[in-house]
Amino acid sequence: MTLNKELVQQLEDIANRLRINSIRSTTAAKSGIRFRTSNIMTRGAHSVCGMGRGRFVSHVGIVKLAKIDSDLEGHPTPRLNFVDVATGSLGQGLSVAAGMAYVGKYVDKSPYRVYCLIGDGESAEGSIWEALSFASLYKLDNLVAIFDINRLGQSEATAFGHDMKLYQQRLESFGFNAIVVDGHDVTVLANSFEQAANTSGKPTAILAQTYKGKGFPDIEDKLNWHGKPLGDKSQEIIDAISKLIKSDSTTLKPSEPSFVAPVADLSVKLCEPPNYKLGQKVATRQAYGTALVKLGKSCERLLAFDGDTKNSTFSETYKNNFHDRYVECFIAEQNLVGVGIGAGCRKRTIPFVSTFASFFTRTFDQLRMGAISQANIKCVGSHCGVSIGEDGPSQMALEDLAMFRSIPHSVVFYPSDAVSMERASELAAQTTGIVFIRTSRPATPVIYENDEKFQIGQAKVVRSSPKDSILLIGAGITLFEALNAADILERDHKISARVIDPFSIKPLDRATILENANQVGGRVLTVEDHYPEGGLGEAVSSALSDVRNVVIKRLAVREIPRSGPPTVLIEKYGIGAKSIVNGALELINNVN
Amino acid sequence: MTLNKELVQQLEDIANRLRINSIRSTTAAKSGIRFRTSNIMTRGAHSVCGMGRGRFVSHVGIVKLAKIDSDLEGHPTPRLNFVDVATGSLGQGLSVAAGMAYVGKYVDKSPYRVYCLIGDGESAEGSIWEALSFASLYKLDNLVAIFDINRLGQSEATAFGHDMKLYQQRLESFGFNAIVVDGHDVTVLANSFEQAANTSGKPTAILAQTYKGKGFPDIEDKLNWHGKPLGDKSQEIIDAISKLIKSDSTTLKPSEPSFVAPVADLSVKLCEPPNYKLGQKVATRQAYGTALVKLGKSCERLLAFDGDTKNSTFSETYKNNFHDRYVECFIAEQNLVGVGIGAGCRKRTIPFVSTFASFFTRTFDQLRMGAISQANIKCVGSHCGVSIGEDGPSQMALEDLAMFRSIPHSVVFYPSDAVSMERASELAAQTTGIVFIRTSRPATPVIYENDEKFQIGQAKVVRSSPKDSILLIGAGITLFEALNAADILERDHKISARVIDPFSIKPLDRATILENANQVGGRVLTVEDHYPEGGLGEAVSSALSDVRNVVIKRLAVREIPRSGPPTVLIEKYGIGAKSIVNGALELINNVN
Repeated sequence: MTLNKELVQQLEDIANRLRINSIRSTTAAKSGIRFRTSNIMTRGAHSVCGMGRGRFVSHVGIVKLAKIDSDLEGHPTPRLNFVDVATGSLGQGLSVAAGMAYVGKYVDKSPYRVYCLIGDGESAEGSIWEALSFASLYKLDNLVAIFDINRLGQSEATAFGHDMKLYQQRLESFGFNAIVVDGHDVTVLANSFEQAANTSGKPTAILAQTYKGKGFPDIEDKLNWHGKPLGDKSQEIIDAISKLIKSDSTTLKPSEPSFVAPVADLSVKLCEPPNYKLGQKVATRQAYGTALVKLGKSCERLLAFDGDTKNSTFSETYKNNFHDRYVECFIAEQNLVGVGIGAGCRKRTIPFVSTFASFFTRTFDQLRMGAISQANIKCVGSHCGVSIGEDGPSQMALEDLAMFRSIPHSVVFYPSDAVSMERASELAAQTTGIVFIRTSRPATPVIYENDEKFQIGQAKVVRSSPKDSILLIGAGITLFEALNAADILERDHKISARVIDPFSIKPLDRATILENANQVGGRVLTVEDHYPEGGLGEAVSSALSDVRNVVIKRLAVREIPRSGPPTVLIEKYGIGAKSIVNGALELINNVN
Repeated sequence: MTLNKELVQQLEDIANRLRINSIRSTTAAKSGIRFRTSNIMTRGAHSVCGMGRGRFVSHVGIVKLAKIDSDLEGHPTPRLNFVDVATGSLGQGLSVAAGMAYVGKYVDKSPYRVYCLIGDGESAEGSIWEALSFASLYKLDNLVAIFDINRLGQSEATAFGHDMKLYQQRLESFGFNAIVVDGHDVTVLANSFEQAANTSGKPTAILAQTYKGKGFPDIEDKLNWHGKPLGDKSQEIIDAISKLIKSDSTTLKPSEPSFVAPVADLSVKLCEPPNYKLGQKVATRQAYGTALVKLGKSCERLLAFDGDTKNSTFSETYKNNFHDRYVECFIAEQNLVGVGIGAGCRKRTIPFVSTFASFFTRTFDQLRMGAISQANIKCVGSHCGVSIGEDGPSQMALEDLAMFRSIPHSVVFYPSDAVSMERASELAAQTTGIVFIRTSRPATPVIYENDEKFQIGQAKVVRSSPKDSILLIGAGITLFEALNAADILERDHKISARVIDPFSIKPLDRATILENANQVGGRVLTVEDHYPEGGLGEAVSSALSDVRNVVIKRLAVREIPRSGPPTVLIEKYGIGAKSIVNGALELINNVN
């Protein structure tokens, strides 16, 4: 489309109509959330991105902003079908956009382009710089990052004001084609988008100098209007903007996409069943690599992402088999998860993202927002708990279950052997939403037959007799400590213990646990390689909180651990077989 | 000290001795954690920082690395008295160092300098770029960031190899005096430290090009030696290094500090008691600002930090009173918490850090590491739960209690009125360690007398009669819903309900809750503006899990909320008075 005077006027008219809609809706909503009126967008100080050309379109119904029965919320969410991801927590959009762009360029090999709007205040978030570095490293020339530099934050001016040179130097040093423009000049903006489309080998950043409330008397370029409606002033300003509009309606419509990416086939399963011998010792993290390759053979849209831990998490096995379906994200976990979320958007791929489970704490905000975005992402965290041994507490995930359980609608698996690990990976791939799998560093014996069936929300009773007088629940390394403890209780104390492997921590198999708890006299002992808060013990306690006559004793890591050999640490922190035996005896002797 | 040939040789000898110690200790520990042998440090691929000159000193006893009875752990922790903060999760050290440097320059006004070592792989972490931006903005010319650019990550080469120009451009664009050096040349290194000390107005980055395993045949500059001991090869290499050492021992000692900052007086209290009328409506977030000013009047070492939300969290009240004790950290929450942790090191200040509670999820890894570092930091999170209303789910903290409870040894307050909020702030300031206070957006009535006493771990029974047949536990906005529900139960159903305000969520007042639960027939209903996992309900459930005859029903937000008016959302998501009444009736009718 040639950019003539008439077209520019039509675009300006559209922009001004959007500004009016923005004022009307925020005024009607009273709390007037995230109000902003630069020319390049309608609202939102927060990054928004979409697949295709320009998804910042404002629709009828915007006067219902932030009402309970309206899908136009204070910050956009995918309850609107043209919204792919939710925004509202800052600095996350560019990673998601980079994930979309990566898939567009390297997986879909499709000409669609991805645009991401970023506030200048927002650009202080480190995740933006992680994403910029990723985007230039992978030469995502189908990505445009638009920085709306209006120099005003929520509570004061931003750190760098309108120092456009500073922004340009930073963006150029991060490998971007960085163009400084007047963000209120439609012609200049249109030309810069054109230039971006013609730039190959690197992504483009459009650094748009703007003024908040441009053209509004006593409001333009002033602080204290963030998130506020214009109130009494709104009519006067609407009138002023209305005068700038030349035509009553527009005939301008975006052209149809020249290419539509075909629907991706995401059907996936283990192409071969697990193949282990009972008693064989295999780390669940290792079985993850094996499982991923089997899943990848059945589905060519399965992508693996890691943050320079692939030789520890075993995602390297996938890379070794499917080099072009592995994406190295280096040591930048926020971007790792953001890119994964982007790659999973619009059902283009099934993203598996792995790192040490402890480092997923870096991405809690991305995961929280991912849930609001209805994201489809599989997180696999290795090196859980004190059982990692010598590397010390910084590398031990002891709060990961608490975190992933708190993500709404998440599924959390904690497999204890290689067979259940492979099935957990398969279930994760087949389940839409946020799924977490916790893997362990040490090798554990295979306890399930290769044809054992596993389901979300289904626990396994792994040791049982009619004489049982206590129920032990452990997962991962502590399942085996519980089994050892059951042997000791039998041998030394003539006490028979039942043992359950919960497998699915969320949803938890309340029915199986309750039934077995009742059968053993209501005595339950949980043991976990995790802090007590939010982990297995609290999950069981809360699942059974509404029944009388069940008592639960919880063994967990109750202080910050030290470095040391795994077996020593497990006993030292009270989650080994000896501690379980003592706990069981206490429970049996003190509670009738 | 003049840099002559002899001095350089002595420094080289020390470096080579440290290399030998490093090889011996990692070989003895077998798992040989984070082995690295560039000349500029002894070990640790991770950033380490300390106050003063060069804290990378290796000590006798290093052959006990990572043994259970050794304080030399896989990654350093403050169990060693010369370690201020733990490392091991990457990209966090520079924020902490920046916090130390900020205090050195602007609070202590002392000439000590702060050095931070950063790996090149680590520099992909966005938090590094947040910290760099902060450091240059505040002209921290007493800070030196040393980038050890050895081009090798854990699992593959880093993204940018030895592209020293790229690092220099990035660092310069972030406002640093960036010097590229040969990291193996002691003379060049010494000169660059000198240059840094003579540079004013901006921090310095020393970009040291290094080779892993420098001088070791078949090991230098090779992948796959990360975190591995040298094993069989170690003696040969030790012999080779030994030949480079010219003197048997060194006479070189660091000179005594020319200035020692005096001990800081951190005694602190509310200089005036709370001053409210019963029933007066005040948001706890507002009372936070009031409390902080009262605390700041009693202690001039109290600093407030915020990430451009000060007009929402009310830390602005503090800024308005003590402009030079407020530090704006802009929208970069990881750095916000890191700087706070650094400011609190060595008992120099009491740091209060505030933002929306939901945005603290961005800092989970920093907080987790903060606990290992024995950090002293007070986090105050506003805008919790659906009761914030129109801004939508991205701004609603619904997992913050789960997160902060899982931090080992943390204290978590959830005050319900202005009086208890002021006291929570005072208790936080007086308690060493990580403390979280959850504040609410809406105004709530004052229910405590101004002279009411509050303690960590102490709940308050706010409504009680001998006829009570159920115990309701709510906090913040839901305490008032519980009180309303108790009125309705009394009026419409002739049921008498007891109500507890837990105030301290961690530690929880188990004794008071259990005693009252037993008095009302073991019927407990918890209600919280939080997701069910890891929140108040699970805390109560797990605290009482070991007693029979108590049943607990938990009301919480069980789906991703929408935007809407607070009162509507509270009922819609099942945590309002009506839901509490229904829940109480269920509990009373179904459970005997």
